[in-house]
Amino acid sequence: MTIGVRRRMGVEERRQQLIGVALELFSRRSPDEVSIDEIAAAAGISRPLVYHYFPGKLSLYEAALKRASEDLASRFVEPREGPLGARLLRVMHRFFDFVDDHGPGFSALMRGGPAVGSSTTNALIDSVRQAAYDQILSHLRVENPPARLELVVRSWISLAESTALIWLDGRRIPRRELEAQLVHDFAALAAVSAAYDEEMAALIRHMFKDEPTDGPFTDLVGRLIALGS
Amino acid sequence: MTIGVRRRMGVEERRQQLIGVALELFSRRSPDEVSIDEIAAAAGISRPLVYHYFPGKLSLYEAALKRASEDLASRFVEPREGPLGARLLRVMHRFFDFVDDHGPGFSALMRGGPAVGSSTTNALIDSVRQAAYDQILSHLRVENPPARLELVVRSWISLAESTALIWLDGRRIPRRELEAQLVHDFAALAAVSAAYDEEMAALIRHMFKDEPTDGPFTDLVGRLIALGS
Repeated sequence: MTIGVRRRMGVEERRQQLIGVALELFSRRSPDEVSIDEIAAAAGISRPLVYHYFPGKLSLYEAALKRASEDLASRFVEPREGPLGARLLRVMHRFFDFVDDHGPGFSALMRGGPAVGSSTTNALIDSVRQAAYDQILSHLRVENPPARLELVVRSWISLAESTALIWLDGRRIPRRELEAQLVHDFAALAAVSAAYDEEMAALIRHMFKDEPTDGPFTDLVGRLIALGS
Repeated sequence: MTIGVRRRMGVEERRQQLIGVALELFSRRSPDEVSIDEIAAAAGISRPLVYHYFPGKLSLYEAALKRASEDLASRFVEPREGPLGARLLRVMHRFFDFVDDHGPGFSALMRGGPAVGSSTTNALIDSVRQAAYDQILSHLRVENPPARLELVVRSWISLAESTALIWLDGRRIPRRELEAQLVHDFAALAAVSAAYDEEMAALIRHMFKDEPTDGPFTDLVGRLIALGS
């Protein structure tokens, strides 16, 4: 009976099952420590049958990464309503959910390495970064960003990645604190850029004009002024 | 006569020459676009002779990267005197000198990819990051950093990397501005962390207490307050 059920699985269904099994294993151990044998065993099929659906471990890894990338990019989507700080905080919460769920796989991928680096994996990482970038610009309602705004947004995205990676290495700081900190970091990096550039200053004033006085940005400014006094 | 000179070159001298030639070529084009034939031609020797000194392109690439890593790490060394902001600004200037000199090679390496990623290259990148981290902690005179300070320093290092990479892609912002901006970004990220943590606040107050009133940190605070008013 089990065999009967197994045989009825279509090619695409079986591929999706193997991707799910692989992602589950990569969420607990680094992909280069997970063998095709383990994936086959966890899926309840033979090793040669895995190779029937995926010609090698790299192709299964890339398919798993593709699904994870789409999952992560979908978490960046946020309704365009309410204060910007609160929107970004909700996205940071979902980002850390993802990082929390995919710890070892996320670390291995972002740290690079011979087992996980290929032009396909790099293109998938870039596509997620681009999705994050596009979402942020769309929330800021900026269509043709000046170079300084592009720099702030893209470099903040890399800051969010490295903050998540450092958090995974020991989890010594509560993730809720880091989610809020990254929202503040965005405001701080934008403010630094605006401090020396009039176009950025005008953009920042426009971006933050609807922030509530009890929101994360106003709260931060008050605390920074207190720190300096 | 030329052949005579060539023949007198010792093994180590020849290896160093090939590394220098490779680094020069990688400073103008991405390493995966530079062939062993070109390196041989630029060094004035035959292709088989290159393989006599380096078993393959990867081993020559790794040797070149090792020299470049040592070069970069040496630029982080700065006398422990004078205001912190001015010290960091001098280091940022030398960092951008390096990035400017090694543009295509730096981009290809940091963006990863099949031609340039290996466990050796990743270990070399990590060693440079660690050298930067150690230098900063030693300037801050902190021996056992709390987790939040470690996060600020390490995540700022990744911010400096991504800022340099984005700058290389079109050089649309003057590098002098980005060198100063990264110094301010460091202060801003530290301040955000300090705004929500008493231990970090005490550290920050101690770190910045000797900053001159006309130095980059004080200047930034004045501009940020002006921005918010």
